Amino acid sequence: MTVASVRRRNVWGWGYEDQQPDAKEMRDAAAGMRSYVGFDPCEPELPVALEDVELPAPRIASPQSLEGICSGETHDRASHAYGKAYRDVIRAFRGRFENPPDMVAYPRTEQDVVELLEWCAQVGAAAIPYGGGTSVTGGVEPAVGDSYSGTVSIDLRELDQVLEVDETSRAARIQAGANGPAISQQLAQHGLGLRHFPGSFELSTLGGWIATRSGGHFATVYTHIDDLVESTRAVTPTGVIETRRLPGSGAGPSPDRMLIGSEGILGVITEAWMRLHERPRFKSSASVRFADLASATAAVRELSQSGLYPTNCRLLDPVLAGLYGAGPSAEGSPSPDGDQVHLLMLAFESAHHPVDDWMELGLGCCRAHGGEGEAQNEARERRADDDGTSGSVEAWRGAFLREAYVRDVLIAAGVIPETFETAVTWDRFDEFHQSVIETTTDAVRRVCGGGRVGWRFTHVYPDGPAPYYTILAPAKRGSEVQQWDEIKAAASEAIIAAGGTITHHHSVGRDHRPWYDKQRPDRFAAALGAAKRELDPDALLNPGVLIDP
Amino acid sequence: MTVASVRRRNVWGWGYEDQQPDAKEMRDAAAGMRSYVGFDPCEPELPVALEDVELPAPRIASPQSLEGICSGETHDRASHAYGKAYRDVIRAFRGRFENPPDMVAYPRTEQDVVELLEWCAQVGAAAIPYGGGTSVTGGVEPAVGDSYSGTVSIDLRELDQVLEVDETSRAARIQAGANGPAISQQLAQHGLGLRHFPGSFELSTLGGWIATRSGGHFATVYTHIDDLVESTRAVTPTGVIETRRLPGSGAGPSPDRMLIGSEGILGVITEAWMRLHERPRFKSSASVRFADLASATAAVRELSQSGLYPTNCRLLDPVLAGLYGAGPSAEGSPSPDGDQVHLLMLAFESAHHPVDDWMELGLGCCRAHGGEGEAQNEARERRADDDGTSGSVEAWRGAFLREAYVRDVLIAAGVIPETFETAVTWDRFDEFHQSVIETTTDAVRRVCGGGRVGWRFTHVYPDGPAPYYTILAPAKRGSEVQQWDEIKAAASEAIIAAGGTITHHHSVGRDHRPWYDKQRPDRFAAALGAAKRELDPDALLNPGVLIDP
Repeated sequence: MTVASVRRRNVWGWGYEDQQPDAKEMRDAAAGMRSYVGFDPCEPELPVALEDVELPAPRIASPQSLEGICSGETHDRASHAYGKAYRDVIRAFRGRFENPPDMVAYPRTEQDVVELLEWCAQVGAAAIPYGGGTSVTGGVEPAVGDSYSGTVSIDLRELDQVLEVDETSRAARIQAGANGPAISQQLAQHGLGLRHFPGSFELSTLGGWIATRSGGHFATVYTHIDDLVESTRAVTPTGVIETRRLPGSGAGPSPDRMLIGSEGILGVITEAWMRLHERPRFKSSASVRFADLASATAAVRELSQSGLYPTNCRLLDPVLAGLYGAGPSAEGSPSPDGDQVHLLMLAFESAHHPVDDWMELGLGCCRAHGGEGEAQNEARERRADDDGTSGSVEAWRGAFLREAYVRDVLIAAGVIPETFETAVTWDRFDEFHQSVIETTTDAVRRVCGGGRVGWRFTHVYPDGPAPYYTILAPAKRGSEVQQWDEIKAAASEAIIAAGGTITHHHSVGRDHRPWYDKQRPDRFAAALGAAKRELDPDALLNPGVLIDP
Repeated sequence: MTVASVRRRNVWGWGYEDQQPDAKEMRDAAAGMRSYVGFDPCEPELPVALEDVELPAPRIASPQSLEGICSGETHDRASHAYGKAYRDVIRAFRGRFENPPDMVAYPRTEQDVVELLEWCAQVGAAAIPYGGGTSVTGGVEPAVGDSYSGTVSIDLRELDQVLEVDETSRAARIQAGANGPAISQQLAQHGLGLRHFPGSFELSTLGGWIATRSGGHFATVYTHIDDLVESTRAVTPTGVIETRRLPGSGAGPSPDRMLIGSEGILGVITEAWMRLHERPRFKSSASVRFADLASATAAVRELSQSGLYPTNCRLLDPVLAGLYGAGPSAEGSPSPDGDQVHLLMLAFESAHHPVDDWMELGLGCCRAHGGEGEAQNEARERRADDDGTSGSVEAWRGAFLREAYVRDVLIAAGVIPETFETAVTWDRFDEFHQSVIETTTDAVRRVCGGGRVGWRFTHVYPDGPAPYYTILAPAKRGSEVQQWDEIKAAASEAIIAAGGTITHHHSVGRDHRPWYDKQRPDRFAAALGAAKRELDPDALLNPGVLIDP
């Protein structure tokens, strides 16, 4: 019996089972992708059907008291076996489920979570908190080693309600299992929104965002989920942690910041009070073209340090400018190959006042560095049903969110379409970027015999950018995971050697461990381990993520 | 032998020994203070001279290897016995030194800090990290209980250099013992500054700011020291922690955020990379008068949620409007007693662009809520020697920084001039504020038989303000500490009961422990305790602060 009350998710790719493309749809989609990937994709294959997959029998059975919320069904187990990294999707596509959970639980109340953890402690099972399952770092794969009797994936999807809205303080208490659209829809009636649009927005959840330090869609100022959290509530194996709702505090190290980024190793986040924004009424956007990298980054650096706080300030390299250029405006049309034109997507928005002056100053910045572009300004009435996804600025956002579906087709058509991301201070950026892009391009060519590497800035801070790299390369059937792992290792080594972070917003999970271990201070890891042993003495929670159990 | 190379600090009050007012200066200063305090101060007394104080003999002696940086002299010990809370200043004024450190150490290198902690471990002494000694929460008082062989105050003043400046990323590596003026002066030659001006700016240090989550002078956006830290370096008894310099990261819980607010219990912060600002060129300021509290707070709430990010947005109640009103503009002149006029100090600044438009929008906000005021705009050339303290906007800042000196005279003249601060969400503010101000006013009258309570907002966030309360009340000679403790307890109970934080930027220290213990989640305290035991297994560091040793 499947106990979850919602649409069945696609077991291998993005989205839901009822969206799964058939063979003809895949073929049609793939046919148009030559210009996107820069080489000829293969004829798309079809995924191994779930009926043809045999999972090992569950090693543990749920107690009677939890039967109503637990499932050992193949679909539940297979669809919770992986996140959505390329190495996850391709394995599921090939019907290769290496560490499926023995049981999937869908708690309906926080008390269910408490009882699930108690059961895990009793039987010696590992517990893997699961939000939208969109981890691209192995964060939800139950690869926990041999010392557990089994694994339970705890899927929070039933806890998806906005419980309270405080319009005065612009904040809401939201359950951790609510995904992007669920949060947007429930807040829209109050004229409010979280304005947090990660690429995984459609499926990923509040709890997942907090646990992984998700980066929002906005380019500057309050965008990282870290800054949007007003208070958190989490169930640990030794009790509940609930922090006080406060706009700011100086009372000791922040308890919220201990949970933010804890990736499920300290507790299961069940709800949080989040800081909201009014839906924007005024917008201004522009695509600005720069003749080369140096002038583009100089302009972005000035913008990042200007105090103008643009809501979008994404610089696309010539590869991505070609791929996305058609999005927001005709001006941003694809550049011919070899062109050095970099495209800056610049936008301002406000619920309070027109932002045309901001844009004028921002464009002034760009022009001083040789950028060319014009603003499109927009003012609109507040509408109660506005979910913040309409309007011309949103065109690129739409393309961005659809990327996950496009990726599935590419994977079926023998393409490795993967990304990795980082952040680095401005003073190191030039050397850093050259090293990362050269190392990665070399690795892609060596491993795949062809392919391309594009990049963009997803976020910019006054002291440095967050570069985001995209790889499109031909896969060798049966060797895809090894191929990707080899490219990933080369890129990750380059990032750490050149002074970046192994992740700006994708999280550490299991896949980033070797480089995270070089990045974080040893004594901090020791302190975190001690905190974990205190909260989770049986090491039940997400073993192998961030630190060794 | 005194080993410190700098000016001798005043043992009881603010500043330096050479600034100590004599009897006539005190009398003259006190004479003008009736209108300030609202009742007649007494004839100022003189402090007990240090020659008349006998401290208990030091219980420990420094080893030969550390003799050059350690002192057991009375002046060193007495001036490190307390912070600068009223209960500290009055005890020192009366010659009552309850827990002087046995030894004061002035490390000249990080290696000295390592060796000092090794020595403390060997002899079983507690180590109290000491920056500017301006704690108002008992954070540097060596009140550590009976289980230590002695106490060593580790004063970082010799580590006061800006070591590296990265003008591209606008960041600098600064030693933890550098105080506000030292940092400003060293950064001014690069046209940069930290733009962090706590009230203790003159004496307090970078390490102290980080350890206590200091609140900057700015009212909105990047002002808390938390947001200005790019990386930190600290010596723990079990090794050094150094975090990677990054503009942003999502790699696990932030190691910086574990050290930020740790109040010396996890390690001695020795240096940090800090995010800087260019010196402002454009400024606009206004004093806006509101007829009552409700309209004033409505305007401030709108400003806080507008995305305009004013650099000053301080609302003064009628009491403080009277005291400070003469500062920035003639318009802000003292209100007659009983008047309900609230005064908003509003300012914008930028190094990048004129801010007149920002001010116009800000004043528009104020006027929509009945506020009256005009802007004063200012643009100036960049000057290499500009230390950011000139200009009309700085007048109030000057008054603000002088407060600490005024306070000493008031204390000598039998006044309790103390402050406490908090933060709370907007939805609770009205009820919260009424409860806190009534409870505190009742306590002041009951305990002191008279006096007044004023308040202001020091910082405002989109989801709530940080109210700051000032008490001026007549002291009873010999009972001052008990008087203050009784008022403080009443105010603190009210804050915690009504949903605020026990501290927004003054820290927890020893004095706030009873209320902090009610505020922080138990399981968080357990996790923090476990982290501390891992880093500081002998519980050497600042015992009694934040958690029990």
